[in-house]
Amino acid sequence: MLPKDTLALGTTRSAIRELFEYGKKRKAEIGDDKVFDFSIGNPSIPAPECLKEAINDLLENEDAVLLHGYSSAQGDANVRKTIAEHLNSVHGTAFSADNIYMTCGAAASLCISLRAVLLKDEEVITFAPYFPEYKVFAEGQGGKLTVIPADTKSFQIDFDKLEAAINANTRAVIINSPNNPSGVVYSEDTIKKLAEILNAKSKEFNREIYLIADEPYRELVYDDSTVVPYVTKYYNNTIVCYSYSKSLSLPGERIGYIVVPDEVNDSKNVYASVCGAGRALGYVCAPTLFQHVVARCVDKTSDISVYKKNRDLLYNGLTELGYECVKPDGAFYLFTKALEDDAEAFCEKAKKHELLLVSGNGFGCPGYVRISYCVATETIENAMPAFKALAEEYGK
Amino acid sequence: MLPKDTLALGTTRSAIRELFEYGKKRKAEIGDDKVFDFSIGNPSIPAPECLKEAINDLLENEDAVLLHGYSSAQGDANVRKTIAEHLNSVHGTAFSADNIYMTCGAAASLCISLRAVLLKDEEVITFAPYFPEYKVFAEGQGGKLTVIPADTKSFQIDFDKLEAAINANTRAVIINSPNNPSGVVYSEDTIKKLAEILNAKSKEFNREIYLIADEPYRELVYDDSTVVPYVTKYYNNTIVCYSYSKSLSLPGERIGYIVVPDEVNDSKNVYASVCGAGRALGYVCAPTLFQHVVARCVDKTSDISVYKKNRDLLYNGLTELGYECVKPDGAFYLFTKALEDDAEAFCEKAKKHELLLVSGNGFGCPGYVRISYCVATETIENAMPAFKALAEEYGK
Repeated sequence: MLPKDTLALGTTRSAIRELFEYGKKRKAEIGDDKVFDFSIGNPSIPAPECLKEAINDLLENEDAVLLHGYSSAQGDANVRKTIAEHLNSVHGTAFSADNIYMTCGAAASLCISLRAVLLKDEEVITFAPYFPEYKVFAEGQGGKLTVIPADTKSFQIDFDKLEAAINANTRAVIINSPNNPSGVVYSEDTIKKLAEILNAKSKEFNREIYLIADEPYRELVYDDSTVVPYVTKYYNNTIVCYSYSKSLSLPGERIGYIVVPDEVNDSKNVYASVCGAGRALGYVCAPTLFQHVVARCVDKTSDISVYKKNRDLLYNGLTELGYECVKPDGAFYLFTKALEDDAEAFCEKAKKHELLLVSGNGFGCPGYVRISYCVATETIENAMPAFKALAEEYGK
Repeated sequence: MLPKDTLALGTTRSAIRELFEYGKKRKAEIGDDKVFDFSIGNPSIPAPECLKEAINDLLENEDAVLLHGYSSAQGDANVRKTIAEHLNSVHGTAFSADNIYMTCGAAASLCISLRAVLLKDEEVITFAPYFPEYKVFAEGQGGKLTVIPADTKSFQIDFDKLEAAINANTRAVIINSPNNPSGVVYSEDTIKKLAEILNAKSKEFNREIYLIADEPYRELVYDDSTVVPYVTKYYNNTIVCYSYSKSLSLPGERIGYIVVPDEVNDSKNVYASVCGAGRALGYVCAPTLFQHVVARCVDKTSDISVYKKNRDLLYNGLTELGYECVKPDGAFYLFTKALEDDAEAFCEKAKKHELLLVSGNGFGCPGYVRISYCVATETIENAMPAFKALAEEYGK
C-alpha cells in the first residue's frame, strides 16, 4: 500500500538514463573511443578556476562554524545581495536581496515555485519540446501539466495553440530558453507576444498566470548576436528559476535561486509563499559553502568555447550530410529530424553505428532526436563517419 | 489566490527564530557578553579537521567534472557502501549500499520518507516534546500529525496513550532520540515496548506502520553508560533518517541519508518509493562534494566534549538553584520545568535577566522551557547569576 505516484516514479527509469547505462556497458565491451555517447546533458568542461580558489579561501579564512552553519532559510543576505546586484548590472533590473531565494538547484527552484503558486489541480502549461521532469514537478506539487505541441518550423511558440489552451484553471506557464532539448533561444518578439497573451488571458479570467522562466542555460549561448531576453522586464508576473549547474559546471552541488521581482502582483506574499513552500518540501537552506562560492564567482562561467566549437562541428557536419537540424543558439543540445517518422526506430538504427541519441518522444516532439554535445570534441570528430553511414542507410 | 498553507508557513515566523533575532538586537544594544542566548540549536563547535582535509584532497586529486557532477539520484555508490559498512561495524547491522539513499539533510530525509509511505490524509504519530517542524513535514506530504502528550515523569513514551491513538489510518510513527528538546535518550526497554505495540497494531489493522527514527543527535551522548539502541534491530518496518549536521557541525551543508533496511516489508519497493519521492520533491541528488566528504569522515565527530562540559555545568548549576531539570543524556538541550505554570510568562521574566529561553509550548509540552547549551562555556558560567536571580524572583 505505497503511494502509486512515488512508487511509479521510483521504478520507471528514464529513457535517457537507460541509454546512458547501455553506453557504459557497451564501452566496456568494445572500448571507450568506439562508442559515441550523446545521451546525457552533463557538463563536460570543468568548473572555472575561481571555484577552487573560492573554496580554498573560504576554508582558510572564514569561521568554520559560520561557514558550514545554517543560513537563513532564504539564503545568506550578502550572497543574495551580490546576486541581485549582478543581475541588475547585466540586465538593468532593480532587484534587491529580498527578491532572491537561494535553492538546491533548478529542480528545487521549480518545485518550490510551483508549490508556492499552485492550488490543487490547477494547470501548468509548457511547450514541446520540453524537459520531461516538468510533468513530475507539476504533478508532485498537486498540479497538472498541459503540453503545447512544438512549432517545428521555428521551435519558437505556437501562439494559436497556446491561446486555445489557456483556461480558467491555468495558473502557470513554464518556458525554458535556451531550450533543452532544441537548443533554441526564444526571441524578444516571442517573449513580447507571450507577455501580451498572458496579460490578456489574466484579464479575461481575472486571475494571476505566472510565467516561470527556467534558465539554467542562460549563459550558454555562442554568438554575439544571440540575446536571451530577461523575462521579468516583459511580463510582471514572472518568476525566474536559475541554477549554476551548467554555467559553473557543478550540477551535483545543487545550488541555484528563485527571483520574485517586485513587479509580481502581491510580490511580498508570493515571496513568503516561496519561503513556505521551501519549508513544506524540507529545504532548510541551500548548501552554505556553495552559496558563498557562487557569490564569489557570480560573473564567471566555465570555458564555454568548447561547447561552441562542438556545436559548430556537429551542426555543420550533420547539415552537410543531409540531416535537417534545428539551429542551436544555446544550451548544449542539437535537435535533429530523424531520418524516418519513428524516432525510436531511428535511434535503434543509430545504436548499430554506436551512436547513442535520445528520441524526441520523451520531450513531446516525435520525429526528432536530441544529441547532447557536452562531450569531448574528438567524440564528435570521430562520430562523423558513423553519422555518414547512418545517413547512407536512409539513402542520403 | 496563493495556497493558504505555504503562505501561512512563509509569513509566520517560528518563536525560536524570533527570540534569536531579538537576541541579536539586544546584544547590539548592551553587548554580546551581557545577553545569554540559549535559543538556537546550532552547533557551536567547529567541524573536525578531517573535513577540511577531505575537501582539500578531493579538490586537488579528483576530476572536477566528476567531483561536482551529478551522482546517481540515490547517491554515489561508493559513498553509500562506505556508510553501510560503517553502520554495520558499529551496530552489527547488515546493510549494503542498496539500503542507503543520500539526502540533503534531516528535513529532506523526513519529507522524502513521509512522502514515500503516506497515502492522502493518513496519520503520523509523534511524541511530545517534539520538533515542531514535524507538523510542517507531515502536512506538507499530505498527512496529519497526531501528538502523544509527554510522559513528564521519565520523558520516555506514554504507551497507554500511544495504544489508544493508533488507528486504522495510522501509517507512521516518528521518534527522535536523543531528543530535541528534552535531551532524553529512549532506553532499550522503550524501543522494545514500542516495537511490541507497533507489531500488535500492524497485525490488528492489517497494515504497515512505519517507525521513522529521526537521528541527527545519535552521536551526541556524553556518558559511557548511555546506549542509543539502533532501531532497525528491534522493529522491521523501521526507516532511519540521519543527518551529519550535528555530528560534523555542518548544518548548512545539507547532507544526510535514509536507511531502508531489507527487513522492511516489501523493502525494494519502499526504497523505490523513496527514490520516487525524492524526484517528486525536486531532490536530484545530495550535494556531491559533501557526499564524498562525509564518506571520508564517516567515523569522526566534532569535539563533543565541549557539549558534555556545558551540560554538566548547566545541569548541576540549575539543579543546585532549585530548578527541576530533565537529565539530558544527549543532544545539546536541557529541558527544565518553568517556575510557574505559564512557560511563556516565565520566558518573558527570564528575558528581563537577559536569559533567552524557549517555551516548551511549541514543542507540545507546556510548563517547560528548552535551554540550548551549544554555546560558549563562558556563556553558561556567566549566566548562572542571572538564573539565580530569576529563581529568587520565584522565592527559590
